[in-house]
Amino acid sequence: MRTKIAIIGAGPAGLLLGQLLHRYGIDNVVLERHTGEYVLGRIRAGLLEEGTVALLDEVGAGERLHREGLLHEGIELAFGGERHRIDLYEPTGKTVTIYGQTEVTLDLMNARRAAGLTSIYEAEHVKPIDFDTDHPRITYVKDGVTHELECDFIAGCDGYHGVSRASVKPSAIETYERVYPFGWLGILSETPPVSHELIYSNHARGFALCTMRSTKRSRYYVQCPLDDHVEEWPDDRFWDELRRRLDQEAADKLVTGPSIEKSIAPLRSFVAEPMRFGRMFLAGDAAHIVPPTGAKGLNLAASDAHYLAQAFREFYDEKSSAGIDAYSTRALSRVWKAVRFSWWMTSMLHKFPDNGAFGARIQLAELDYVVNSKAAAASLAENYVGLPF
Amino acid sequence: MRTKIAIIGAGPAGLLLGQLLHRYGIDNVVLERHTGEYVLGRIRAGLLEEGTVALLDEVGAGERLHREGLLHEGIELAFGGERHRIDLYEPTGKTVTIYGQTEVTLDLMNARRAAGLTSIYEAEHVKPIDFDTDHPRITYVKDGVTHELECDFIAGCDGYHGVSRASVKPSAIETYERVYPFGWLGILSETPPVSHELIYSNHARGFALCTMRSTKRSRYYVQCPLDDHVEEWPDDRFWDELRRRLDQEAADKLVTGPSIEKSIAPLRSFVAEPMRFGRMFLAGDAAHIVPPTGAKGLNLAASDAHYLAQAFREFYDEKSSAGIDAYSTRALSRVWKAVRFSWWMTSMLHKFPDNGAFGARIQLAELDYVVNSKAAAASLAENYVGLPF
Repeated sequence: MRTKIAIIGAGPAGLLLGQLLHRYGIDNVVLERHTGEYVLGRIRAGLLEEGTVALLDEVGAGERLHREGLLHEGIELAFGGERHRIDLYEPTGKTVTIYGQTEVTLDLMNARRAAGLTSIYEAEHVKPIDFDTDHPRITYVKDGVTHELECDFIAGCDGYHGVSRASVKPSAIETYERVYPFGWLGILSETPPVSHELIYSNHARGFALCTMRSTKRSRYYVQCPLDDHVEEWPDDRFWDELRRRLDQEAADKLVTGPSIEKSIAPLRSFVAEPMRFGRMFLAGDAAHIVPPTGAKGLNLAASDAHYLAQAFREFYDEKSSAGIDAYSTRALSRVWKAVRFSWWMTSMLHKFPDNGAFGARIQLAELDYVVNSKAAAASLAENYVGLPF
Repeated sequence: MRTKIAIIGAGPAGLLLGQLLHRYGIDNVVLERHTGEYVLGRIRAGLLEEGTVALLDEVGAGERLHREGLLHEGIELAFGGERHRIDLYEPTGKTVTIYGQTEVTLDLMNARRAAGLTSIYEAEHVKPIDFDTDHPRITYVKDGVTHELECDFIAGCDGYHGVSRASVKPSAIETYERVYPFGWLGILSETPPVSHELIYSNHARGFALCTMRSTKRSRYYVQCPLDDHVEEWPDDRFWDELRRRLDQEAADKLVTGPSIEKSIAPLRSFVAEPMRFGRMFLAGDAAHIVPPTGAKGLNLAASDAHYLAQAFREFYDEKSSAGIDAYSTRALSRVWKAVRFSWWMTSMLHKFPDNGAFGARIQLAELDYVVNSKAAAASLAENYVGLPF
């Protein structure tokens, strides 16, 4: 089999890239080691920047999103027993949209199916080969048979643990990493959200986040030790802990219910440089991971897909490799800004075991400054709604 | 002897407080353990916020400052081999004034002398007593004779190592501290400054700062290990190291010359809470220390003196203790914002031994963001020129 762009991974980065390329008339094939159901079963982020929404609109996958997504014009920062609103819209003219990553993936899958594009799920032992030559290809096993997919370029959109980055010789990659000394215990429940906007809470007991998937489905998180297990957190304990980390009004308003999902995720910042290796390009989590505090992971995957799709369009339409030559630098410039923002939000809002009394007070001084300074609030807002592509 | 306000310490905090009180008709005495020459011999900061300048004007000690001080409307941040200007004036409407702390102290000394106010230098064994009663007093030894100074209130303006804070029982104070794992090696030289504005440089070899006392006298710093000694840094080594940490243009323009002062200072953030203990009030370095990166130490001493002078004026003029009751909270609110800013500038600009590759890249991402975002640059600027009193 042969295609122009072989895309490894059917998450949002790979599927969005595939649809963008399709729109530009560039033939592509998606390879995914899991089933579509498995991919959709992963509970992930749920906050889209306007730039991400525009890309989904561009590929015709935005209809349900506009119908079901919730537009937010602000967030709330809670500390010292009080909540303070950060207006996102006023300084930026932009909003964010609450819409689950699972839904984005489903919409993109449906768009891909409707367009009749080739997607090979349950492709085992996927292996990018010869991407440092002019004849890159991918081998994979499907139903016990080994296949080869020849292509012009490979797009590695297969996440942090994927085979794409792992196929590059280590000496060709620089990695930058911070592992945070805590995790997020999250639950999903069929309850109305405690507030119509997100609440980020800095509390002496640890960070908490109140977010949502819809007006009827809530998503809550509490910071927890990395070695905690979900079994140690029956629903009642979770709700009690969450309540303690909220201001009185929010705690009183909180509607609890059985969890329909519960998991603990570690927090990590990670960047691999460069994002191009010959004829293989990395996009999304394959190249970088951010802690979820800034809601940037999915949105970075989307901006990578955008830059990469433009680069390929330039290559095929204009016979210019300027775009693909610039891809890594262009993408990384935006990546590092989002990595910085996510690190900053994480640093300001969580309880760090080694921070001491000074560090805890600096967090409160920073929060106090941010909510009272127009310039600082605008800086938070412009990052939160997403810096321009 | 009896006075209304007994001020311990003849640094800028104590002397400015004394002049403000004099202007409000409030009798005060300054006690200083050193000679005036010793106090003037200490080389310190040299950057004044407009609020500080206004206070010096208010007490009639601003004349020379306006004649000799240099007005700056911006600073430069250097990283990645390039310099980027942060405009201070455009977003804030404010400037900063370059004028040495030594000169401020001298002007205040002269004003105090001209007003005929009592200052007792070389007062040994100064001891604030009974400040938790209605009859506070200070004992001290002058020329071998023990004296007692009765007063209504004591103002502890005697610095980090002073007796005022040390006289409070430890259980009554909360302290917050961060000691940074490096020092600043600074020299003063009779050479024209390399640039007409300050240059703050983040460099792989460590931080460097180019500042000045006048158009003919430069002050330069390089970050150095805490256990370095001045003897290990002959002038040539200093100039070589400084040059390496500057961009090419600045390195080429740097005019070197013999150092007329050279010293290594540790960097520390420190806050003691509260700033009031009965009838004793702390102001300036006696209550808080900031690393010099944000140029906030002297300016915080001035705002403390302002708050305290207003509180005493309210007490005597309006027979209200509201001001003195609010002093600690009011002063600390501004203190913590400056402590946060100084910590942030320090964190962003220095090489930290334990930061790793990720931390170093985050610094560059932050600098890149700050110089390219209007909101972030405005946030830096509003802190640099000084948040309102």
